[in-house]
Amino acid sequence: MRTFDIKPLDRSLLPELQDKIDNLTKPKGSLGTLEELAKQIGMIQHTLSPVLSVPQNVVFAADHGIVREGVSFSAPEVTAQMVVNFSKGGGGVNMFARQHGFRLKVVDCGVNADLPPIEGVLERKIRKGTSNYLHEAAMSVEEMERAVEIGAEVVDMVAAEGTNVVSFGEMGIANTSASSLWMTYFTGIDLRDCVGAGSGLAAEGVKHKYEVLSRCMKNYRGDASTLDIIRYFGGFEMVAAVGGMLRAAELGMIVLVDGFIMTNCVLAAQRLYPEMKEYCVFGHCGDEAGHRLVLDYLGAKPLLSLGLRLGEGTGAICAYPLLVSAVNMINEMASFKSASVTKYF
Amino acid sequence: MRTFDIKPLDRSLLPELQDKIDNLTKPKGSLGTLEELAKQIGMIQHTLSPVLSVPQNVVFAADHGIVREGVSFSAPEVTAQMVVNFSKGGGGVNMFARQHGFRLKVVDCGVNADLPPIEGVLERKIRKGTSNYLHEAAMSVEEMERAVEIGAEVVDMVAAEGTNVVSFGEMGIANTSASSLWMTYFTGIDLRDCVGAGSGLAAEGVKHKYEVLSRCMKNYRGDASTLDIIRYFGGFEMVAAVGGMLRAAELGMIVLVDGFIMTNCVLAAQRLYPEMKEYCVFGHCGDEAGHRLVLDYLGAKPLLSLGLRLGEGTGAICAYPLLVSAVNMINEMASFKSASVTKYF
Repeated sequence: MRTFDIKPLDRSLLPELQDKIDNLTKPKGSLGTLEELAKQIGMIQHTLSPVLSVPQNVVFAADHGIVREGVSFSAPEVTAQMVVNFSKGGGGVNMFARQHGFRLKVVDCGVNADLPPIEGVLERKIRKGTSNYLHEAAMSVEEMERAVEIGAEVVDMVAAEGTNVVSFGEMGIANTSASSLWMTYFTGIDLRDCVGAGSGLAAEGVKHKYEVLSRCMKNYRGDASTLDIIRYFGGFEMVAAVGGMLRAAELGMIVLVDGFIMTNCVLAAQRLYPEMKEYCVFGHCGDEAGHRLVLDYLGAKPLLSLGLRLGEGTGAICAYPLLVSAVNMINEMASFKSASVTKYF
Repeated sequence: MRTFDIKPLDRSLLPELQDKIDNLTKPKGSLGTLEELAKQIGMIQHTLSPVLSVPQNVVFAADHGIVREGVSFSAPEVTAQMVVNFSKGGGGVNMFARQHGFRLKVVDCGVNADLPPIEGVLERKIRKGTSNYLHEAAMSVEEMERAVEIGAEVVDMVAAEGTNVVSFGEMGIANTSASSLWMTYFTGIDLRDCVGAGSGLAAEGVKHKYEVLSRCMKNYRGDASTLDIIRYFGGFEMVAAVGGMLRAAELGMIVLVDGFIMTNCVLAAQRLYPEMKEYCVFGHCGDEAGHRLVLDYLGAKPLLSLGLRLGEGTGAICAYPLLVSAVNMINEMASFKSASVTKYF
């Protein structure tokens, strides 16, 4: 697999960033999380005056063979239908993208349908959905490497448009199942605490999903290395996101992280390159069981907690104005000196 | 005191709102809090297609006589200095207002300084700060009524500009003290749990603040009615905010609620008119001790929790994009039918 050269953040700028923030006309520390964000973004960009440019959201879409075991409340054809819906601007992610000035890229990396060419959808289909990991690996090593390449390629496209902040989303019926498996293997948290309702399972359905996934774990005969877990249980859209995140961190972009599935992609990515986590801003803690646990495991403090569980990048995009606020704060607020305010704080 | 005619929300529209939301292309309930918001805004505006227009933030500024007892970390002259800073666009609230397209009104209703006429600042000075409520009522009945009128008057100005969503902020050194006293009287929560660091007191300072406020309570000889507590301990800026909130609810506006001080203004206002609470959207839970407790008392679920403690309306304005998202959701997202997506959810 290709390698990524991800630099740890340069902390030498931190005292200067802190000093600049502490001289703005406000009680010290009174902009809370926004101050932390401003420091992180300043360090990512190596500057006291950071800039956010051309924010983009990339939605990777693919289907999962495990859906045949009845682990999702949703019908499998919905993945393809939603790709079409995104292309027409009717999805949740479209609405949020319009609101916050995000460009949107939709990438078919494994939807189980013969889609005609669709404007606004990048066709990078690896296969029509993964294999059923109850019985065999979801994908081959070559397919995994291809998915990583696709993610990296799309981030290169995004970078060429001047983007320095990117969020990733997904559409893939049954992908909370794959995420729960990555989570239990990579965190050691019991599978039971990693499994949730997905798009709407009732208690009975969650129990069945748990039982199926337990059997998948029993059947697994791999070497339990990070890469083997990624390919055995992953979705093409998830592996593409991992590749995209790693490339974005390599390029020094801000990676804005969406919900349960994308948080598990960060979990996988940071096992390969721990430094990538420093480029991540966690947008949202959603309602899917396990999301809070995986965020805690990563030491992540999500900006929002609104009970969203839609995916597609929506939780990430909703958090974007807070990044803008953080950047505006450090660039636009008056200092005590410039405003002739007694530095009382 | 003038009365306000505040209508309870018309819940008859709720089933239709719910039905419209449940037919958007997303798993049922998957936009969490945004769905709750859309329903509330729809009911406030009596429509399935709500609109937000000309958002405004009103900052009321005034000084507090209690500041002489050393209850604030900040120097009292800062209130006036910050009013000037706001007028020049250098405050935190200015930056957020610019970002989110808010108009800003700053109202001097009792700043302890002879300010020259300042462009962008409405001069409605009642007196140069309240009296010291360690020894006497902060204001007379007439002054309280005047403050309520000022708040209502400014909301009428705002309404004339086409605004249907308004947030309120404050600038008044020592006003967390007044807020803590309102809170303990109106909720029954022990004063100790209502007192915090304000703009930056260390533990020693918080202890002193608590002791001073305890003595204020011991010295109080009023009848403990809502209006008497409001005038005895209140600030002019706080009472003006109460008047503004009540008038906004009377006019059927959305009242976007800021931090600890403004939440205590809602607390006071809803004791007078319980229905006003239904028009409130709580923007933020901040770091000031007691804020979470008073929100819980009100049954309020704030949209953000970012450790802000700046006031001025900042926590409210930061939450505004979520209101826009809620409104866009119900107006812009495709339905299952229009998008030909299997209603799987």
